[in-house]
Amino acid sequence: MLALDEQQQAARDWFESLRNRICAEFEAIEREAGSEAAFDFIPWDREDAEGGPGGAKGGGGVRGLMTGKVFEKVEVNVSTVGGRFSDEFAASVHGAAEDPRFFATGISLVAHMANPHVPAVHMNTRFLTTTRRWFGAAPTSIRPSLTARIPTHSTRGSAPPALRTDPTFYPRFSKWAEDYFFLPHRSVARGVGGIFYDHLECFEPGKGVSFEANFAFGREVGEAFLDIFPKLVRLRMDTPFSDEDMRRLLDFRGRYVEFNLLYDRGTLFGLKTGGNVDAILMSLPPLAAWK
Amino acid sequence: MLALDEQQQAARDWFESLRNRICAEFEAIEREAGSEAAFDFIPWDREDAEGGPGGAKGGGGVRGLMTGKVFEKVEVNVSTVGGRFSDEFAASVHGAAEDPRFFATGISLVAHMANPHVPAVHMNTRFLTTTRRWFGAAPTSIRPSLTARIPTHSTRGSAPPALRTDPTFYPRFSKWAEDYFFLPHRSVARGVGGIFYDHLECFEPGKGVSFEANFAFGREVGEAFLDIFPKLVRLRMDTPFSDEDMRRLLDFRGRYVEFNLLYDRGTLFGLKTGGNVDAILMSLPPLAAWK
Repeated sequence: MLALDEQQQAARDWFESLRNRICAEFEAIEREAGSEAAFDFIPWDREDAEGGPGGAKGGGGVRGLMTGKVFEKVEVNVSTVGGRFSDEFAASVHGAAEDPRFFATGISLVAHMANPHVPAVHMNTRFLTTTRRWFGAAPTSIRPSLTARIPTHSTRGSAPPALRTDPTFYPRFSKWAEDYFFLPHRSVARGVGGIFYDHLECFEPGKGVSFEANFAFGREVGEAFLDIFPKLVRLRMDTPFSDEDMRRLLDFRGRYVEFNLLYDRGTLFGLKTGGNVDAILMSLPPLAAWK
Repeated sequence: MLALDEQQQAARDWFESLRNRICAEFEAIEREAGSEAAFDFIPWDREDAEGGPGGAKGGGGVRGLMTGKVFEKVEVNVSTVGGRFSDEFAASVHGAAEDPRFFATGISLVAHMANPHVPAVHMNTRFLTTTRRWFGAAPTSIRPSLTARIPTHSTRGSAPPALRTDPTFYPRFSKWAEDYFFLPHRSVARGVGGIFYDHLECFEPGKGVSFEANFAFGREVGEAFLDIFPKLVRLRMDTPFSDEDMRRLLDFRGRYVEFNLLYDRGTLFGLKTGGNVDAILMSLPPLAAWK
């Protein structure tokens, strides 16, 4: 049984309510397209012999999967887990070198879309506890849209309201996404736009930040995603496309497979330490092509 | 200009003649299927500032590509290169820790087939020179056939004539393939059958081996491939298949993508050291699926 303190519980509740609202919205889009697709929810438990901070131990999550007419393959996962990192891994995690116990709660979503004009999307946001506490997130497009850059929060250089909390956030975090989601072997971007941040500390002496402020920012990012992405989907889901557009989509998806299997730290860590393979590789596209 | 000694020249000539015969045979199969597909040959040069053993330096290769009716995507590459490994890499290469200069010549082939009942295949064989000299090879199927195990050299436990030179070779090398071509994160084999060997030394004091004997063995492996694989293709290329068979083929191909991007040493080394991306990733399937 995982014991959560007040902050952990608040973060978990938020991620789960965001999941519920996102899934309901995606199902509504399917109905508008004349489909009755709905999410299947599959709960899973994590077994861990040792406890995390404050006795946190075990936990688990719920995978939500849907195969629809607009959403060719979408998975929305929430998880809330605690335990102890291996010594080797602990050394590389913020605040875990001193004490390898951890707690993590978050939401992770990957949507591969049937219409090549709708950008595929990746969104995750999380709250971590080791000897430190922080938020991280990465809502980004997986590939360039075929027709144009995403005209809202994913357009570089213009921050949506949710990102105006701290004027340095958007320039810093959009640059971070650009640097992180890059394929060095091909010298191309994995996608375009979006933000990436990690280690947004909930208490830094003298800096005036707090759990409340950073949690509020994290919620704004989630709200922005929920506001913007469905609008984009509805804007583009009926755009006609050619065989050549589909071919380009499958090629972009190949780049995404390369990124996840060659570089993505979460994927590599999960696979090499015996994680749940299906949940880890849920991000891979239903179909991809290589020339 | 790459200067070759007599052994290097003999090995290179053999690989190039094997390439010519394989490509001619694959094109003959396409014609039998009513297609006029033919290989495109694309030469490339390797630039290297420093020389390999005996002044070996530079070199290059030829990529051969065909998209046909039976061969959905096949690439047959030969290369003959010399140079100097980075110090870091040299430490991991047989005989290169003392002196990082190297020479390598070989043939590498990957065929993804249109009919799910024809096994996809990977075949490479190579001759390396550092302070040592050796042959290596890996002719294996990429995935299990849908209908049965491959009924000739790829059936475990029964060695074809070419592998009877040394009675220990087949058991050792088929076990090696089984161990190497394995996906730990899924606990499944990448394919079935075939052999894998490396560091087949051309001179080991007191062991009575010689360049001639091991080169003869490497030629037998190439001849066995050229004899057996086209027979298998002709046996299965017209077998009827269902959408479900095609779906399973695309899933198997997904496993192969995972193997190559997560584990294959040659792929990772090539990508992370700035090799020719197109030639390195030529092995990836034209289309792959993930559930």
